[in-house]
Amino acid sequence: MRVSELSRRSGVSVATIKYYIREGLLPAGRPTGVKQADYDEDHVRRLRLIRALISVRGLSVHTTAEILRAIADSDANIHHTLGLVIGALDAASGEQHTEPPPMAGEVDLLIEEMGWVVHSSSTAPRTLGEAIASLKQLDVDLDRRTLLPYARLAEQIAALDLEQLGDAAEPLELAERAVLMTVLFEPALMALRRMAQEHLSAAKHHPRP
Amino acid sequence: MRVSELSRRSGVSVATIKYYIREGLLPAGRPTGVKQADYDEDHVRRLRLIRALISVRGLSVHTTAEILRAIADSDANIHHTLGLVIGALDAASGEQHTEPPPMAGEVDLLIEEMGWVVHSSSTAPRTLGEAIASLKQLDVDLDRRTLLPYARLAEQIAALDLEQLGDAAEPLELAERAVLMTVLFEPALMALRRMAQEHLSAAKHHPRP
Repeated sequence: MRVSELSRRSGVSVATIKYYIREGLLPAGRPTGVKQADYDEDHVRRLRLIRALISVRGLSVHTTAEILRAIADSDANIHHTLGLVIGALDAASGEQHTEPPPMAGEVDLLIEEMGWVVHSSSTAPRTLGEAIASLKQLDVDLDRRTLLPYARLAEQIAALDLEQLGDAAEPLELAERAVLMTVLFEPALMALRRMAQEHLSAAKHHPRP
Repeated sequence: MRVSELSRRSGVSVATIKYYIREGLLPAGRPTGVKQADYDEDHVRRLRLIRALISVRGLSVHTTAEILRAIADSDANIHHTLGLVIGALDAASGEQHTEPPPMAGEVDLLIEEMGWVVHSSSTAPRTLGEAIASLKQLDVDLDRRTLLPYARLAEQIAALDLEQLGDAAEPLELAERAVLMTVLFEPALMALRRMAQEHLSAAKHHPRP
């Protein structure tokens, strides 16, 4: 299809499509003339993913390009794909850290107690440690005994996530679904938590007959 | 205490403390002279909360001021406090919406199925609908049957959250803990989910003996 149709199908303007191609987010079309190129379904799908990451998730163009590169480089191994994708997301959000993460001992013990195997390049343990440390500074002390039931529920959520990924899809599709379930579903989970908080708080303090 | 000691105790510079007072984030100290004022423990505590919201959570000074106002206005009713706090957070993140939220019917049915009572001013249902809609656009179709187990796990997380809030604390402290558990604990939960995803994916695709 021509770029005008790609624009119509994806809802992304021609100028923005050309910008994404220049920035390496989208592969160029197959040249069919001096100023013309041919685009396919893969372009449509990828544009929708780019839009979701940028407009829904609020990532920068640069970060989105990094994530797409990670997906493109991945092979058919779902674990590898998921690891790359999570790694890309973490790399994307992160500055370089030279100091050891806060609460590292506490976090390591929790991971050990859960029996989780977490790659040394994952920054999720640091994120967890930073959150616990900042809460502790504000006198909300979440020790391992308190965190353990949260970790168990997180594991149940992750099991549901893996079910959504399925087994049969293409590597690119698997990687996309992994990004989508990891990144785009986060606000949905947090919204469910807020609604449940509101409901349980009301039920506790204003019990209905 | 004098502003220099408040600065030392809170780790916030004197210039920043004065800026927060001008912007209404922090009440002014009790005047003790032409250019001197007296600050108390409440100032220390509030400064730590402000720092956490701005530097850990990345909120703007304006949004942080709104949240602090909501806390200051709340009474001893924990449900009211939690509602205000969640309302403030939502208002803070949100533009004005004139269009109906996407997937509203699907979200309403899910809320009904869970038996949740959610206030009409909550924007959590919209956030959920937007996330589902953007995933659907990308061919990840999360229907009610898929979302229900997530909602049940979110309710279990919310029950743990309410346990952390406790019953005995002062209204201001309760409100603070509600903000902290709602906002500052989000990255911790998402980090736990990512570690669990990584672990389960590895366990599934590279089972250990």
